Amino acid sequence: MIGLSSYAGVMESLMNSAEEQQPSSPLTNSWSKIQESSKNQKPKGVGGFVLVHAGAGYHSESKAKEYKHVCKRACQRAVDQLKAGALAVEAVAAALVELEDSPFTNAGMGSNLNLSGEIECDASIMDGKSLHFGAVGAISGIKNPVLVANRLLSEAQKGKLSAGRIPPCFLVGRGAHDWAVSHGIPPCPSEKMATKFSLSAYKRNKRKMELAEKMDTGQNQTKKRRQSSENENGSGCLDTVGAVVVDLEGNVAAAVSSGGLAMKHPGRVGQAAHYGCGCWAENACNMNPYSTAVSTSGCGEHLIRTMLARECSAAMQSEDAHQALLEAMQNKFISSPFLTSEDRVLGGVIVLRCCRCVEAQPSQNIQGILVEFLWSHTTESMCVGYMSAQDSKAKVSIPISQIIKMFCSEF
Amino acid sequence: MIGLSSYAGVMESLMNSAEEQQPSSPLTNSWSKIQESSKNQKPKGVGGFVLVHAGAGYHSESKAKEYKHVCKRACQRAVDQLKAGALAVEAVAAALVELEDSPFTNAGMGSNLNLSGEIECDASIMDGKSLHFGAVGAISGIKNPVLVANRLLSEAQKGKLSAGRIPPCFLVGRGAHDWAVSHGIPPCPSEKMATKFSLSAYKRNKRKMELAEKMDTGQNQTKKRRQSSENENGSGCLDTVGAVVVDLEGNVAAAVSSGGLAMKHPGRVGQAAHYGCGCWAENACNMNPYSTAVSTSGCGEHLIRTMLARECSAAMQSEDAHQALLEAMQNKFISSPFLTSEDRVLGGVIVLRCCRCVEAQPSQNIQGILVEFLWSHTTESMCVGYMSAQDSKAKVSIPISQIIKMFCSEF
Repeated sequence: MIGLSSYAGVMESLMNSAEEQQPSSPLTNSWSKIQESSKNQKPKGVGGFVLVHAGAGYHSESKAKEYKHVCKRACQRAVDQLKAGALAVEAVAAALVELEDSPFTNAGMGSNLNLSGEIECDASIMDGKSLHFGAVGAISGIKNPVLVANRLLSEAQKGKLSAGRIPPCFLVGRGAHDWAVSHGIPPCPSEKMATKFSLSAYKRNKRKMELAEKMDTGQNQTKKRRQSSENENGSGCLDTVGAVVVDLEGNVAAAVSSGGLAMKHPGRVGQAAHYGCGCWAENACNMNPYSTAVSTSGCGEHLIRTMLARECSAAMQSEDAHQALLEAMQNKFISSPFLTSEDRVLGGVIVLRCCRCVEAQPSQNIQGILVEFLWSHTTESMCVGYMSAQDSKAKVSIPISQIIKMFCSEF
Repeated sequence: MIGLSSYAGVMESLMNSAEEQQPSSPLTNSWSKIQESSKNQKPKGVGGFVLVHAGAGYHSESKAKEYKHVCKRACQRAVDQLKAGALAVEAVAAALVELEDSPFTNAGMGSNLNLSGEIECDASIMDGKSLHFGAVGAISGIKNPVLVANRLLSEAQKGKLSAGRIPPCFLVGRGAHDWAVSHGIPPCPSEKMATKFSLSAYKRNKRKMELAEKMDTGQNQTKKRRQSSENENGSGCLDTVGAVVVDLEGNVAAAVSSGGLAMKHPGRVGQAAHYGCGCWAENACNMNPYSTAVSTSGCGEHLIRTMLARECSAAMQSEDAHQALLEAMQNKFISSPFLTSEDRVLGGVIVLRCCRCVEAQPSQNIQGILVEFLWSHTTESMCVGYMSAQDSKAKVSIPISQIIKMFCSEF
């Protein structure tokens, strides 16, 4: 299906390929969008783009509205930063703070509770310019885990600590909490981070677990495990959040944050804290023509074992971004040799890639940055929002995955 | 330099290429070894091979002797397991237990103390057959962290937990400790894991830190950090341990364990717990002709950001293993775009690769497994040991990196 729609001087061409896909294929449809503006209309020094997600999973009608709202706010926060001249890594952190602060997402405030009824969060951030990375795992009592990850990243960029010690890029648990507080990030009592919704979900999950274990009483332990196929952590609870950003200078950054699976074992760390698995960002270099940024969502163990963020980033160096992402999701995730024992592979990605190019009207000889962004997921839906620094407001979408190509001159 | 030596029916040809290398090249020399045995001499059902390391760094004369001993014992432990019919993953865990139990290595017993004077360990294990992975980070009070990683791996292979919960592959901190104890792994009081050596090193490091901070008093904090280039965590303290194994059936496995950098921040997790960074193992498949296993040692942050274990594993699919490892160490580590801001890149790897092949005498038409093993490091030295299930004792080496090719028929 090829469709066309237009709004506010922007030409969009919809290339929905969902109908041609096999049932086992990831949901990856595509849009292409070319933004054109004449030399006179161009706002000076305004550039950059943000794409956010509030998780791959199932989004109920009641939650969908809230998710769309928070995605819009997150985009706006990033764009405000970009307009103020911030680098991509600062803008992506700002978007994440907004996503974490929503009591509806499974990150920061309102995160899933673990087996012991506690909140333990994972988050990471990567700067495509410096290629530095910061991450926290199983951190409690901090409202915005992404700010700790970002601080780890920026501290590491300053070089060695006293007596030549190498600064950490990954801290977990109590040590991560204490490091954050000693670096000026305020602690937040854990009870303030739980919400009515997360507490009632915990009670419900606990009852289900007890019931499942009761029903299995007397059965062989191993048999019990293998037979228990009902996934009550299913796609409804995989709402990790994330964002990818390109700034005015063409630098990319990516970040991800998650409260992890509901009823996880205390100390469990998922993909959101794992290098190469939760997020990835790499500016273009001699070897790679495209700058790429990726953020993932889904079942942490599946995303870790397939290193999905890095695999998708590597795939994005192919010419056809849409085809490359489809193939990466199929070959490196759904049919991955690393997940052959899994009955259902759950995950989603948002991807941004960009390169410097000459505007559609070459006679004007104006350099610009071509930004393509796309997403794909094996779950029922994925909530995404996106916004250019030149847009007046963000767009959001829940059911359909998209590829959007955007040409912005003078940015 | 090309040299030749032989022992006990084994032909070895030394291909030392160190003298041809650039000063910035990793130390990677090479040996090739072909083990031949006639049909009558072959012990039935005896096969497998282990390669262990006790860290890349600087090994003093006094420590060297102990390191060699523990490498020999670790090889013997793995070979005992292989002879008893164990799979590679079980044999590699057995080797690691021996390495962790030594009070001289920086893993398990005798690990480096962190800033607070506590021991927090990282360990991981990967099974090339199932491609499952288990890891623990910043775990305290457990004598053998690798056994917790191995248990996580084997529990995950059993499938889902009650109520469809996905089993964790990575646990950290207190949660990891409690999970271990609830799975029958005995706790060990932290004070029993510290040694005279680790306690005196802690006191010495603390004094150095205080002195360094005192000298910097009054200077700008950022300036202070950047100017402080003395690396007192230098190559002397990077003695992470690890092993790679191939079993009788040709399955590979890899493991790694570390107490982490001396005076690290509590909660800091290094490469030993990080997927793709500390160890990697992948059996041959349609895409890859070789089974590969890798274990790394060195500065955790450098090994994380370059994903060195996985990069070396991928490189090993090239025909010339020696050249491939040299190039991987040069391009993916020493000259890696991920480490451009680092003044000194510290790390080492041990690598094993194997493939099924026909014996040197094709007329006999006997299938065998060709095993090649090699190591490379940017540090002053690296202590390694290796042993075939057909050998009567292990060989150990400290100063020279090697590639060894071995042909074992009927294994």
